[in-house]
Amino acid sequence: MIEINASRYLANFKELSLIGVSREGGIDRPAFSEAHQQARDWFFKKAIEAGLEIKVDGAGNHSVILKSPEASKTLLLGSHLDSVKNGGIYDGALGIITALEVVQRIKESGIPMKFHLEVIDFTDEESHFLVCLGSRAFIGELTISDLLNPPCGRINLENALERFHLTDHGVLSAKRLSDTLVCYIEMHIEQGPRLSDTNNQIGIVSGIVGIRNYRISFLGNQNHAGTTPMPGRRDAGRGASSFQLAVINILLEKFPDCVGNIGRMDFFPGDTNVIPGRVDVYLEFRSVEISKLEEMERIFLAQAKEEANRYGLELSATPLSNLDPALMDQEIQKTIKTTADSMGLSNINMYSGAGHDAQLLARIIPTGLIFIPSEGGSHNPSEHTKWEDCIHGANLMLRTVLSLAENNNE
Amino acid sequence: MIEINASRYLANFKELSLIGVSREGGIDRPAFSEAHQQARDWFFKKAIEAGLEIKVDGAGNHSVILKSPEASKTLLLGSHLDSVKNGGIYDGALGIITALEVVQRIKESGIPMKFHLEVIDFTDEESHFLVCLGSRAFIGELTISDLLNPPCGRINLENALERFHLTDHGVLSAKRLSDTLVCYIEMHIEQGPRLSDTNNQIGIVSGIVGIRNYRISFLGNQNHAGTTPMPGRRDAGRGASSFQLAVINILLEKFPDCVGNIGRMDFFPGDTNVIPGRVDVYLEFRSVEISKLEEMERIFLAQAKEEANRYGLELSATPLSNLDPALMDQEIQKTIKTTADSMGLSNINMYSGAGHDAQLLARIIPTGLIFIPSEGGSHNPSEHTKWEDCIHGANLMLRTVLSLAENNNE
Repeated sequence: MIEINASRYLANFKELSLIGVSREGGIDRPAFSEAHQQARDWFFKKAIEAGLEIKVDGAGNHSVILKSPEASKTLLLGSHLDSVKNGGIYDGALGIITALEVVQRIKESGIPMKFHLEVIDFTDEESHFLVCLGSRAFIGELTISDLLNPPCGRINLENALERFHLTDHGVLSAKRLSDTLVCYIEMHIEQGPRLSDTNNQIGIVSGIVGIRNYRISFLGNQNHAGTTPMPGRRDAGRGASSFQLAVINILLEKFPDCVGNIGRMDFFPGDTNVIPGRVDVYLEFRSVEISKLEEMERIFLAQAKEEANRYGLELSATPLSNLDPALMDQEIQKTIKTTADSMGLSNINMYSGAGHDAQLLARIIPTGLIFIPSEGGSHNPSEHTKWEDCIHGANLMLRTVLSLAENNNE
Repeated sequence: MIEINASRYLANFKELSLIGVSREGGIDRPAFSEAHQQARDWFFKKAIEAGLEIKVDGAGNHSVILKSPEASKTLLLGSHLDSVKNGGIYDGALGIITALEVVQRIKESGIPMKFHLEVIDFTDEESHFLVCLGSRAFIGELTISDLLNPPCGRINLENALERFHLTDHGVLSAKRLSDTLVCYIEMHIEQGPRLSDTNNQIGIVSGIVGIRNYRISFLGNQNHAGTTPMPGRRDAGRGASSFQLAVINILLEKFPDCVGNIGRMDFFPGDTNVIPGRVDVYLEFRSVEISKLEEMERIFLAQAKEEANRYGLELSATPLSNLDPALMDQEIQKTIKTTADSMGLSNINMYSGAGHDAQLLARIIPTGLIFIPSEGGSHNPSEHTKWEDCIHGANLMLRTVLSLAENNNE
């Protein structure tokens, strides 16, 4: 049985981890940044050296392809090279390195494949500009209206696309037809403590949480902070802060199996000597159950209204994105489990609390997601996975791909 | 008795109010912005047309001067042309227009003056880069350390200075000696409701509040918003929001004659899908009594510590600026009152809740501040003063200056 080339795999990962290092020692590779493009250029350089083909689609998704002479369909592997600001080195990047190693190893092995193999690096998985821009374009669910009204503001998206020679029309043209694709497989770090807490080497993902995003604007009266008496103020900051605390308490008390976050509040005009006339609160919440997402949405919006009333403020709530929960393919889960068991890797079934491109791919083709353990959380520089866990995951990925290729028919 | 030229005064004010109009119909002329410089250029153009001299000092303060042949000392009038973001058209700008009209009218009248008259437009009164940069440099209380560690960040100040061909050394060289100056007089809108609530035309300011500014940083654990269980999170946003609410409640309950504001909170990294690892809260508080400032400081810092402890966060509190309360000169107050009474203008003595350059000037020379009524608050586009109130204020300023020039000796 072939195995990945562990020393090349590690060398590649180390090289990639040097691109976009942040001041705090993490990774700064937001989509469409210079560092992001450097990582993508590096990915293509490695592919060309390995004798693989390369391709960029209209959404900027970067693909590395091992063509198979008699194949018509493609078995898709992938993840993403972009990161959050000051994120970790594993999130996304390890999935790309792993898929590249798997395909490179299969090419070297000379094993004949019934399908083309394609490693795809999806654009903006971290949703810096637009939630899963690349994979949503890929499955054909992005609309011109999404592109004209992105959460980041149209001008920011427009500038980013222009900088990378992309156009609205091109992004929409990135749609791929499901009947040309066999399935999609991704390996990713868990980004949570469950595998390491239970001493398991592999998580076989059964489903991925849905995520809803809102911008909640509290609107008060911008005024002079020195001359306006305290009692009459309509301070948008009070509504925002009170809402922030309420959201966390509601989640802790009423939704033990869900999560939510306020990652950003923007104060306007943002001067220390001006009472804020408006504060924009960015709220997201996640659940594997649509009914829970809907219940949270109802409760949070009612709470925002209550806080606005309490402090004499106006309210404006804008849904920014809505990603439904997704189920992973049952057959692929079975294949992963059988393979992991045969390799002696301890494994459990689990949900993913993080969103992934796999969530979108699952809407059009059978999709599988393999988790390996995480330490130090994720989306921060302390993100860490033991190297032996990476190697186990990569070998599991390799054998799963071979097994899926074996058992699928054109 | 001479009076100001009301139609020219209005025409000038209308022209100036067109420079830097914001999208919301307010004024965007933060210090060192293009619009700010346009306003200053306009001020100099008007002065030159009026046959007055112009001068820029090393801190970028723009002066318009009426030289008197036999004088050695200068009687200083002034205010500022910069604004907060989306501020009003009156704050600062009206004071400059008024002082310009007063000096121009005195020049035209041919009344011999014992002193040079100088209208000074101080740089960055709104403290966008550095609290009262221009007037602090003018009185010689700015240090190189202030310039190297400004609240806005050194790089921002450096870029701004460079853009306007200013240097650290130049800023420090703007210091003027008190024995070359007679006194400083400013007219300003009240920016609060007291004059209009009591139906008075003139406020004679007896003192100006002291202002303390802090950056309070709550430090938690930056982590993935989907995979990190709610109970274990160390969310810096909770500490920040809880502190925001506590500050307002403390002010309302314990300090009825003081004010405070949180005008800005910065979330890091600021992504919706990342639990904030740090939130910087910008706090300012004001009182006319130093003892109250000290008491508030003690209570607010203890409260911040308490909030940090409550949510398992670390805390870092950085004092950004500390402006002591200032008393206006008794003799000048008397002169303003006598003049206002003789003109039949209803007037009261009052404190200023807003900071002004006058606060700094008062440390080195006798200083007077005249308020006229405000409507619609201040630091917002609705800021408004009846035009007849402006004219009354300008004529009071004119006669006060003539009276002070009369009664002061070289």
